[in-house]
Amino acid sequence: MKRTSRDIRTANRYEVLRQIIAESPTSRQELAAATGLSLATVATLVGELLDLGMLTEVGFEDSAGGRPRGLVAVNASGGALIGVDIAETYVRVELFDLALNVLARADEDMRPGESRPVQVVGHVAAAVGSVVAQAGVEGARVLGVGVSVPGQVDRATGIAEYAPNWDWHDVPLLDLLSEHISYPLYLDNPLRACAVAELWFGAARGRGDAVVVNLGTGVGAGLALGGGLHRGVSNSAGEWGHTTLVLDGRLCHCGNHGCVETYVGAPGIMLNLRELSPRSPLLHPEDQTATIDALARGVAAQDPVAVKVVRDTARYLGAGIADLVNLLNPEVVVLSSWVAAALGEPLLEEVREAVARHALRRPLAATEIVLSPIPTDPVCLGAATFALEGALSSITQKAGQRNNRRTWSKQ
Amino acid sequence: MKRTSRDIRTANRYEVLRQIIAESPTSRQELAAATGLSLATVATLVGELLDLGMLTEVGFEDSAGGRPRGLVAVNASGGALIGVDIAETYVRVELFDLALNVLARADEDMRPGESRPVQVVGHVAAAVGSVVAQAGVEGARVLGVGVSVPGQVDRATGIAEYAPNWDWHDVPLLDLLSEHISYPLYLDNPLRACAVAELWFGAARGRGDAVVVNLGTGVGAGLALGGGLHRGVSNSAGEWGHTTLVLDGRLCHCGNHGCVETYVGAPGIMLNLRELSPRSPLLHPEDQTATIDALARGVAAQDPVAVKVVRDTARYLGAGIADLVNLLNPEVVVLSSWVAAALGEPLLEEVREAVARHALRRPLAATEIVLSPIPTDPVCLGAATFALEGALSSITQKAGQRNNRRTWSKQ
Ligand SMILES: [Zn+2]
Ligand SMILES: [Zn+2]
Repeated sequence: MKRTSRDIRTANRYEVLRQIIAESPTSRQELAAATGLSLATVATLVGELLDLGMLTEVGFEDSAGGRPRGLVAVNASGGALIGVDIAETYVRVELFDLALNVLARADEDMRPGESRPVQVVGHVAAAVGSVVAQAGVEGARVLGVGVSVPGQVDRATGIAEYAPNWDWHDVPLLDLLSEHISYPLYLDNPLRACAVAELWFGAARGRGDAVVVNLGTGVGAGLALGGGLHRGVSNSAGEWGHTTLVLDGRLCHCGNHGCVETYVGAPGIMLNLRELSPRSPLLHPEDQTATIDALARGVAAQDPVAVKVVRDTARYLGAGIADLVNLLNPEVVVLSSWVAAALGEPLLEEVREAVARHALRRPLAATEIVLSPIPTDPVCLGAATFALEGALSSITQKAGQRNNRRTWSKQ
Repeated sequence: MKRTSRDIRTANRYEVLRQIIAESPTSRQELAAATGLSLATVATLVGELLDLGMLTEVGFEDSAGGRPRGLVAVNASGGALIGVDIAETYVRVELFDLALNVLARADEDMRPGESRPVQVVGHVAAAVGSVVAQAGVEGARVLGVGVSVPGQVDRATGIAEYAPNWDWHDVPLLDLLSEHISYPLYLDNPLRACAVAELWFGAARGRGDAVVVNLGTGVGAGLALGGGLHRGVSNSAGEWGHTTLVLDGRLCHCGNHGCVETYVGAPGIMLNLRELSPRSPLLHPEDQTATIDALARGVAAQDPVAVKVVRDTARYLGAGIADLVNLLNPEVVVLSSWVAAALGEPLLEEVREAVARHALRRPLAATEIVLSPIPTDPVCLGAATFALEGALSSITQKAGQRNNRRTWSKQ
């Protein structure tokens, strides 16, 4: 698939806005230096973003002689973005300003079994209505809604092709949502949401190649390569959870045996615990979150069973991450999502040791392994970022036709 | 690592020349359509390549009304490129014209144990001298020499950091070679040589994302993502051979256990055979090539042991390739190098079945698995391509200073 001039313009627009969000205020000259783009290109892109009201002029830089340089910053109130995290047991929705600050949040719990598409869509619609009302933004200011749903999704058609935990097959999720929500909608999955959040705002920002390892109920690896998300030819890249780690090992819901996910996803970690100590009080058989939290507290209290389970889990995880390091030679590997957040530093340390035992010297030396630095829900943030990217790529304005109207193409 | 304007210009230059080599003669308008670049950009790049003598004008296209369009083609005699394949048991050198036709070839056998850097360098220098003499090209016309050496290499410094089969550590190979060879030298490894050969001339050309699985004594996966080679942050991406396929499995020379390479590299396949049938007449204990060839003949004759060994090998290989398909969602997976060439279609069919058993439905449906279509030594071709890329990226000419001098920057 060739990269067209249009793709390159869109990527440059991302790059410039990303840099401005990270460092505001800034000058066009600083942006050119930071992005490697020409000053003329930067000036054109900044002009577009100013016309759209996404940036604002904030005065001039002090300059020792020479012409003073104009400074621009994100116009935080120039629009709102909504991120939706549809998980197995809850729906969380956050509304952001254009500087990606959270202005409002709504959570909806889903009872076990409450997993029919129409039920899930009802929860999402209610929560989206709630955040818009809470934040008091005008509807016209909402630039888009990014929606993350587990499993394999077709972004182009808005179809949730396969969600293993709910047995969803080819659910036309965006069509269903658009009956309740009138803003532009963008569908993707949590793997890629976490990766794009790290790329714009987290540990992958400004790094050449990053792997964002997502540790939750499901497991995956979002790939941020060459400064952009690697989606693959049909937007399903990152399904690292179904990598064979133990040939003929544990049966996975994908039908394969020995997948990484069956050892390091939350249910896999519960099984690691059960195999070690079947009657452990740490085990809450029907509750993944409670079990992972109990393990975290156990490690903090130096409970030997908890320590051993985290070490065993890190051993599997380290072997798998070493494979990613050998294959992709990334600058950074980020551990993200709720299991990584709950097990934190003790897991990170064991993982670093395990990766060092398995990876080749040269790629290992070039790779840093870190916990995600994003303090809020990375899936909501990433989903909102998809909406931001969508808005940026739907700019139809031509450089020659610039005027003060704000022009967004319709979805 | 940011992609600078200069990187983008170089990538565009590759893209345009690649397209012209694939389809000559062609017009600037066709090139713009095929590459997605603007006509102005294409015209500038074609102008540079014409000035350098790499292209030639070959008349005008018939055109029903309107201005006739000028046609350009590769100027095959505009320069020569040399590709060097340093393997465990031989050195092969090929000299190419600019259309990448082989004009001359020289092979040097290396006796077992003849693996000191100075010995290897002597063979390379002799073979390079031989091809230049055979082809009768003037030295000034040789644009560069690409050198592929197994293991981990530092392209920037020209150091062979680690070659496991020879126990080389930090050998300053390009410095040693430059004492004998005065052309610009470019060092890389066979993984990336095979990948770049497929990208320019083989099954990955015009594909968005491709994985080139290299099956030889060593095993790896060259990654051609987004139309370019994915090198990783320290040029060591592609070390898929050291992916853990069987936790605690066979010991690998990398120190890890259960690496893919220990099951599907030539020595691994010999071990698969030995475990199945220790006294098989197919087994030539000291000769990988003879054993693989005997297996290929055995499969053709429906020898049950040979069929079983190829099936077992394909089962390991298929599990490993399914992991690549799940992780990277490529458009094409190419089986390359001498083991793949020797075992051919029977291996390919078994691999396709094994991948289908392991991979997820969505990425599997988007991926084609093929044998390399490159009829000559892909490592020599890829090494020569590195020299071509090096020549294209060292163009110092500025658009404003164009004249008829041919300007190449010094190495
Ligand atoms: Zn699986
Ligand atoms: Zn290994």
